[in-house]
Amino acid sequence: MANHTLFLIPNFIGEFSKDYLPKRTLEYIYTLRHFIVEREKTARAFLKAIDHPVAQNEFEFVELNKHDNYAGFKSFFDSHIPNFSIGVLSEAGLPAVADPGNKIVKYAHLKNIKVIPLSGSSSIFLALMASGFNGQNFQFNGYLPIDAKERMIALKDMERRSRKAAQIFMEAPYRNNPFLEFLIKNLQHSTKLCVAVDLEKEGKETIISKPIKDWKPQEIQLHKKPCIFIIEG
Amino acid sequence: MANHTLFLIPNFIGEFSKDYLPKRTLEYIYTLRHFIVEREKTARAFLKAIDHPVAQNEFEFVELNKHDNYAGFKSFFDSHIPNFSIGVLSEAGLPAVADPGNKIVKYAHLKNIKVIPLSGSSSIFLALMASGFNGQNFQFNGYLPIDAKERMIALKDMERRSRKAAQIFMEAPYRNNPFLEFLIKNLQHSTKLCVAVDLEKEGKETIISKPIKDWKPQEIQLHKKPCIFIIEG
Repeated sequence: MANHTLFLIPNFIGEFSKDYLPKRTLEYIYTLRHFIVEREKTARAFLKAIDHPVAQNEFEFVELNKHDNYAGFKSFFDSHIPNFSIGVLSEAGLPAVADPGNKIVKYAHLKNIKVIPLSGSSSIFLALMASGFNGQNFQFNGYLPIDAKERMIALKDMERRSRKAAQIFMEAPYRNNPFLEFLIKNLQHSTKLCVAVDLEKEGKETIISKPIKDWKPQEIQLHKKPCIFIIEG
Repeated sequence: MANHTLFLIPNFIGEFSKDYLPKRTLEYIYTLRHFIVEREKTARAFLKAIDHPVAQNEFEFVELNKHDNYAGFKSFFDSHIPNFSIGVLSEAGLPAVADPGNKIVKYAHLKNIKVIPLSGSSSIFLALMASGFNGQNFQFNGYLPIDAKERMIALKDMERRSRKAAQIFMEAPYRNNPFLEFLIKNLQHSTKLCVAVDLEKEGKETIISKPIKDWKPQEIQLHKKPCIFIIEG
């Protein structure tokens, strides 16, 4: 096992069980005691769920502050990386993909520290696989603007681009139901929409992929559920 | 374990070992005997490497023909899905992402058959995590055109888009070295380039991420190695 390395650690997206991570990923995490995380509480729960062999009081964490100047994680990184490898853990899914973890990775490259990404689950990628859309070309857009006018412009722009590349996007989970209605109302009848919900929740995961003309606003309950939306023109 | 389901099965991207797949993924594959694959030989080697408990002579395969009308896989699908679940397996990485497997998934949705994507490794996503680039917005472009003039136009177009979203792309592995020279020569000095090579090859994986002005054409040997390129403006 390499030392002095920054390991990027995937978190769970559905069930909270180590059966959802490869043995190789688990074995690398088991060698680590130092972690840069979004929230210490979530990180401790994750390390407990994977049966990390080190006692909880021996872990060291620094929380990544989204609104700060990142001074905290830099000093943690600089003081520990000469002696230990460090793990980066996000709240869900892959770190540094649609979360602020990329700042840490950028800093490691600047300091010439080896970066190793560990394999795990990504709801974005699982949804794309299961959509049946053309994976040769795709784009992830994160969240649409909240302002009604800007949101409509962003949607129409994505729909136009979806003729060349599948367009992936998300919504705040408590707004998923009205968002689905918004999509059905404003996308063209021939545009295909995939909704992937509760991925890796055993017995619950649902993936529906069909043209807008075949969608009904209330046919699936998305309220507060983790959900990925994809369109293809 | 669900029956009558289409399972999307990730293949290895580096080491050929079941330690690179989650236990949950392995357990679902162990329930399957029917597979739609790109090449039967590769599929059999994969099933052997993961210690599939079923004897090789009990498996049934249909090869997905890239240039055909897909009649073969449809008849295989239609005849087996009433009685069995079926697995889709690609040559490397995630099926239906940058490979023709999406046609099968599309067909399953059309027939109202449940689709479950199983988690595994994606070199595209691992490279993106490890690049340090902004994962809030990214685009996968596949391969650039081969024609020199079209290739230059595609590169300049990607570089322009890379100011808003990280741009991910690939090259045929035997052309990786001249391709890296082409990128260094034609991208702006301030554009950042990440090259991720030999991901999940133990002790070999290398990720370099820095501005074009700091790249030297021969600093990394990429010939015939699996490689992902990402730029950010």
